[in-house]
Amino acid sequence: MDSAPQAPSLPPEILTQLQQAAGPGGWTLDAHEIAPHLVEGRGLYHGTCALMVKPATTEAVAAIVRICARHRIPIVPQGGNTGLCGGGVPDGASVLLTTSRMKQLRGIDPATHTMTVEAGMVLADVQRVAAEHGLLFPLSLGAEGSCQIGGNLSTNAGGIAVLRYGNARDLVLGLEVVLPDGEILGSLKSLRKDNTGYDLKQLFIGAEGTLGIITAAVLKLFPLPRDQATGFVAVRDPQAAIELLGLARQRSGDAVTSFELINRLTLEYVLRHMPGTVDPLADPSAWYVLVEMSSSRADAGLTTALEDCLADAIERGLVTDAAIAQSEAQARAMWRLREEAPDAQKFEGGSIKHDVSVPVGKVPEFLARATNSVEAHLPGIRVTAFGHAGDGNIHYNLSQPKGADRDAYIARWAEFNRIVHDIVQDLGGSFSAEHGVGKLKIDELVHYKSPVELATMRAIKRALDPDNIMNPGKVIIP
Amino acid sequence: MDSAPQAPSLPPEILTQLQQAAGPGGWTLDAHEIAPHLVEGRGLYHGTCALMVKPATTEAVAAIVRICARHRIPIVPQGGNTGLCGGGVPDGASVLLTTSRMKQLRGIDPATHTMTVEAGMVLADVQRVAAEHGLLFPLSLGAEGSCQIGGNLSTNAGGIAVLRYGNARDLVLGLEVVLPDGEILGSLKSLRKDNTGYDLKQLFIGAEGTLGIITAAVLKLFPLPRDQATGFVAVRDPQAAIELLGLARQRSGDAVTSFELINRLTLEYVLRHMPGTVDPLADPSAWYVLVEMSSSRADAGLTTALEDCLADAIERGLVTDAAIAQSEAQARAMWRLREEAPDAQKFEGGSIKHDVSVPVGKVPEFLARATNSVEAHLPGIRVTAFGHAGDGNIHYNLSQPKGADRDAYIARWAEFNRIVHDIVQDLGGSFSAEHGVGKLKIDELVHYKSPVELATMRAIKRALDPDNIMNPGKVIIP
Repeated sequence: MDSAPQAPSLPPEILTQLQQAAGPGGWTLDAHEIAPHLVEGRGLYHGTCALMVKPATTEAVAAIVRICARHRIPIVPQGGNTGLCGGGVPDGASVLLTTSRMKQLRGIDPATHTMTVEAGMVLADVQRVAAEHGLLFPLSLGAEGSCQIGGNLSTNAGGIAVLRYGNARDLVLGLEVVLPDGEILGSLKSLRKDNTGYDLKQLFIGAEGTLGIITAAVLKLFPLPRDQATGFVAVRDPQAAIELLGLARQRSGDAVTSFELINRLTLEYVLRHMPGTVDPLADPSAWYVLVEMSSSRADAGLTTALEDCLADAIERGLVTDAAIAQSEAQARAMWRLREEAPDAQKFEGGSIKHDVSVPVGKVPEFLARATNSVEAHLPGIRVTAFGHAGDGNIHYNLSQPKGADRDAYIARWAEFNRIVHDIVQDLGGSFSAEHGVGKLKIDELVHYKSPVELATMRAIKRALDPDNIMNPGKVIIP
Repeated sequence: MDSAPQAPSLPPEILTQLQQAAGPGGWTLDAHEIAPHLVEGRGLYHGTCALMVKPATTEAVAAIVRICARHRIPIVPQGGNTGLCGGGVPDGASVLLTTSRMKQLRGIDPATHTMTVEAGMVLADVQRVAAEHGLLFPLSLGAEGSCQIGGNLSTNAGGIAVLRYGNARDLVLGLEVVLPDGEILGSLKSLRKDNTGYDLKQLFIGAEGTLGIITAAVLKLFPLPRDQATGFVAVRDPQAAIELLGLARQRSGDAVTSFELINRLTLEYVLRHMPGTVDPLADPSAWYVLVEMSSSRADAGLTTALEDCLADAIERGLVTDAAIAQSEAQARAMWRLREEAPDAQKFEGGSIKHDVSVPVGKVPEFLARATNSVEAHLPGIRVTAFGHAGDGNIHYNLSQPKGADRDAYIARWAEFNRIVHDIVQDLGGSFSAEHGVGKLKIDELVHYKSPVELATMRAIKRALDPDNIMNPGKVIIP
């Protein structure tokens, strides 16, 4: 017999109402089916719920939320459950609402460069449908094969093309949201300009489901890239990388889509642990940049632009060596060196992670100060820094000293967070650049936000969700 | 003696407190100095105030607002007073707060591509300072010589480069706001990625001062254009224009910065009334497009790209004739044909105006339906349509029939608004694309927004400004 703890339950008449609202096939009490929805990827949280609903329509979502509102039952929205901060994990006798069955393409309008999708459509499917119409949906990130667009918008996802196309927030023209009282705020307009009162959709993007449930969105599309240039570049130091970024933006016609900074140790981990990876350059360098330019213009001549830019940068002493991909396969191989970094790091013992951002021009100062501080605090600690330097976003990860005790090291997580985040704060940065707050970073939010910011967030939360039923315990405690 | 009505007044002790908070040179009771601040450009409103304050610092703004909050005195923020909807015009015994003395450049960071400016800096000065550092601040509109950046952000200004760079909202990374209780919400971060709770700045952008007073902002900058191509193009019809837009975006590497649609009548008004203007094409066409491409890459070859794109469009039957500017002077002459349209129209009698947007792909349907309707409603009415078709934003103006009585025609303003706005609404459009709501369009807002949208706007307004002291009577009545 299974000795799992009894799931929390709801009064039978409310349960019945919710099941009816969700419709046939729209709910489950099966612990086996629910189980994967109660944990998040890193295993930090293990939640509970009284019922999982799987509504197929916005109207069903609204009916479910109205019942929850009437009885003040917590409701936790969940997309692909790929978040890293526990924002989608339910607690107690809550209703877990997955958007997985809401995957309709409501429409695509190539002339307007927009598409209208339901929240449950997987990001890779959104990209694919756009491409089938000759257009680009530029949001791209590691989890794109399973994350859902509704979750991407709820968390204002970032990824590898923010430099050129912005965050998820910047890719939305219209939004449909079920509010905490069960009303549908339907503003699925595909307008580039609309100055008729408060831009309400902005409230729900990045709110991690604490103000309402995003059920559909109108997304911006772009021309598909037809020319691309990729380079793996040894830079003198992080300061040189930032100067190279300005040069590359200017010389390419602002066509730099990715600009990733990688330190030598990160590259060494990848070369050591990831089969088939090769250093594209002859001599080691303390710092590298992976740069990608792309354009919808087939004759954009981006390879020439990149070559000219790098030649100039070598002359200025910013760049010491560089390889430019001569084929799609070479470009893929260069990207692997960046993309395998998180996995390669696992072979080197415990890693204390930070997803921080600072103003782009302050990346060098951040790296110098943080590295001085953590190395002084724990000699032998190994800084594994990589990330979207073009956005000022560094995944600043700290591998344990060689031979140290893993658990004892990981137990010092909060201690190193404080050191790193204090420096970030001092530089006008953010303790969560892409990943959001969820449950994991609530304490950091209270620690680093000003009293006025916290009070304003609470005022908004109370105004829209006075009974605190919408994803309670996440982001902000009202 | 001047027979102007007595200005409304405040209790002497409150007046003294406000004067002390504003500091020396920070206030006036001089009717002559105040007078130009009480009217808006089109003369639709003539307001009153009990005091005009001219604070020089954010702290002074906060001190003034705290006094107003304590005594529930309405406060009306005003920038360059170039708005077209009366949003900055005060009423009754209110305090008018002009940001004109807050013109400090707080900093510019070329490496991060950002600058931090105070609300009172004139838009043209923002552009100039950026250019002096080799960078572009792309917001550009007719009033740029006198409008202030704080007002631009409060109204989410649009203009001629939205297609490529977005609205004012898209150009902001951080914001400093004095809230209705006098607290300073200081979030002047220059981060491209920051997912730490609700994106509060979005609330104040486009709120027209009804939720707080924007005192400073961090703005995004871009590489300066170094190559440009401008063309004046005769298109088959509006549908062909929209197809040309897609083609031009793709062929230029998404470098289309402006895409303006102009009908023949508009061009005829300009040629007739504006000295020195010349039709760039030999034969008349019912519809024209003014297209501009620009790139920071000096060797972008945009003229070639535009030529190729137009040759292709001619082959596809979209374009019937085209002229490409061969010099800066020719490009300026083409732009004059578009920019002089509003003034040229004044020579043709009364004009009933609409600042509407629809999804870009629906511009042709909007133009056909609206024109059918208004011509059927009033035979002889003359449609003068021009605007930012690349954003779906049309200034759809209706000149009176020849020889009609001007006043009788203008008296039918609301009647024609209803006809045009109903079609806009039916197409998922907006009755105010760029100009905002202010006082002028409050009734349209109530008419066209859904009850849920209105209720949510009111909930936000009440949460942040429970006593309704911040620009009351504008945008939304709580």
